[in-house]
Amino acid sequence: MEMTEIIADIITRKESAGGLKQVYYAACGGSLGAFYPAKCFLEAEAGMLRTGWYNSNEFVHYPPKLLGRNSLVVVASQKGNTPETVKAAEMARAAGASVIALTWETDSPITKHADYVVKYTYGDGKDIAGEKTIMALLTAVEALAQTEGYENYNKFRGGVSKIDGIVKQAAASVAGRAEAFAGEYKDDTVIYTMGSGASWSSAYMQSICIFMEMQWINSACIHSGEYFHGPFEITDEKTPFVLQISEGKTRALDERALKFLRTYGKRFEVLDARELGLGAIDPSVVDYFNHSLFNNVYSVFNKALAEARNHPLSTRRYMWKVEY
Amino acid sequence: MEMTEIIADIITRKESAGGLKQVYYAACGGSLGAFYPAKCFLEAEAGMLRTGWYNSNEFVHYPPKLLGRNSLVVVASQKGNTPETVKAAEMARAAGASVIALTWETDSPITKHADYVVKYTYGDGKDIAGEKTIMALLTAVEALAQTEGYENYNKFRGGVSKIDGIVKQAAASVAGRAEAFAGEYKDDTVIYTMGSGASWSSAYMQSICIFMEMQWINSACIHSGEYFHGPFEITDEKTPFVLQISEGKTRALDERALKFLRTYGKRFEVLDARELGLGAIDPSVVDYFNHSLFNNVYSVFNKALAEARNHPLSTRRYMWKVEY
Repeated sequence: MEMTEIIADIITRKESAGGLKQVYYAACGGSLGAFYPAKCFLEAEAGMLRTGWYNSNEFVHYPPKLLGRNSLVVVASQKGNTPETVKAAEMARAAGASVIALTWETDSPITKHADYVVKYTYGDGKDIAGEKTIMALLTAVEALAQTEGYENYNKFRGGVSKIDGIVKQAAASVAGRAEAFAGEYKDDTVIYTMGSGASWSSAYMQSICIFMEMQWINSACIHSGEYFHGPFEITDEKTPFVLQISEGKTRALDERALKFLRTYGKRFEVLDARELGLGAIDPSVVDYFNHSLFNNVYSVFNKALAEARNHPLSTRRYMWKVEY
Repeated sequence: MEMTEIIADIITRKESAGGLKQVYYAACGGSLGAFYPAKCFLEAEAGMLRTGWYNSNEFVHYPPKLLGRNSLVVVASQKGNTPETVKAAEMARAAGASVIALTWETDSPITKHADYVVKYTYGDGKDIAGEKTIMALLTAVEALAQTEGYENYNKFRGGVSKIDGIVKQAAASVAGRAEAFAGEYKDDTVIYTMGSGASWSSAYMQSICIFMEMQWINSACIHSGEYFHGPFEITDEKTPFVLQISEGKTRALDERALKFLRTYGKRFEVLDARELGLGAIDPSVVDYFNHSLFNNVYSVFNKALAEARNHPLSTRRYMWKVEY
């Protein structure tokens, strides 16, 4: 089933209960990050539909008041076996919600607690338009379009049709920069990431999933607007930052951080969505595509960094190795 | 005017427009952190009322769809002159929203764009029940109680009446531990904080306002539930953590992180709300008082740390010194 049909089916089934009124997102780590643009989309674009964005274990222990028969809960787990997320799906269904599970492993524990299972694309050469982030965005866009209506629906679909080409061209264009980045930062013990708006989450994922998890480099993800209210005091000529300059409504926040880094910092890498080609997407929807662009361009930098550091991205201390 | 009266006044004024339907929180840095428990309160306890939690500059550039005549926007600024927050208040009023400004400086720019100005307590010996965090919580609690009703209202008010005594006793009890903490961590270049639920925000404030801003120590605030999905890979016998063990619904998330740190880490400080006396507050409302407890207990540690490092908490590189 296409996402359009899945959402239509959910709406039909909820008619007798008063309709679809909430779309919640629950996941852990990188999957939670991938859900952030969808949450931002509904907060910024929806009137009646409500949303929420939760770490799965927090969702299980401290759910939103309205979770119930009028809710859709979207969960995601790469291998479909993240225990907290499996539990979140189970709990959501027990509360009367419909559950969509996004996964790469369609024969996995989470599918037992899902009404709909959607397999997303993953790995080298994948279609970016089929990735977890876009699939999650489509749950939000379709839910909005099919309930209260979404005036930019066709423009959004246009963005989806363009994103794969934009990302692949952008990724190819940064190969040389990625090598230079790896050489410059391979011995650093702390690297910050920064972003804003609906793509704050790609900075979050780069910080927690790559620098911390896969490279054991200390890191934090700083919101570009929050930077000036505390974090910027750690800026000096030595401290490294990776700064996302998004295309869309919050670009001014990112540009302000860039101006400051140019004045008081020295070691920073800038990923500018406009330079990377995202301007080809309509301004009314472009905010929601920054995440996919940044997230995939980071991959080029990350492969180079892992090689320069002789620390493969698959190295772990605890994951897959110990009980926790 | 008491908060009860302010909210009653707002509800009366909005009657002709269809009533109060959204309560949004917009601020920067520490003030944004102080708003987080109020946002969590409404997500977990409210049916009809909606909420949102925004960095002021993001709110200005990328506001929620529903911002308008049915909205209350609560803003906060210590000196009342944070430019992005002044702008957020101005923008909110232009959109037809009512604005409550929480500040310590009642003759300040932000008050020009507020319908109601509330002065909170601040500084040594302050009444904790009058602090920014509790004032913000009261906007949420009163809004809920006076619209759709809040069954634990009296229990919440009971918590407010107890919090000052609990915090002062807790702060006195950690004096010795704070000295030992300062001695142990004074030469560290990175310290992580960790928390969950409605008090994740006190870990956020400790990370961005104290370690990064006031001590120039690298830091990140890790959500206890997210820790196991990336960040925990940086755990080793050297890396320092300050872990909040909250009282209430998400305590299990914090205890799980503690168990892991006890097994694989070595250098961590634990602030346990139960040990610090928060169990005196009713379980139905206790989640919302962790933040005030942790935030104020941190102050004892921070004074000792600043002294041991010979780096006063008022030292800045950029704030008050350069344009940005």
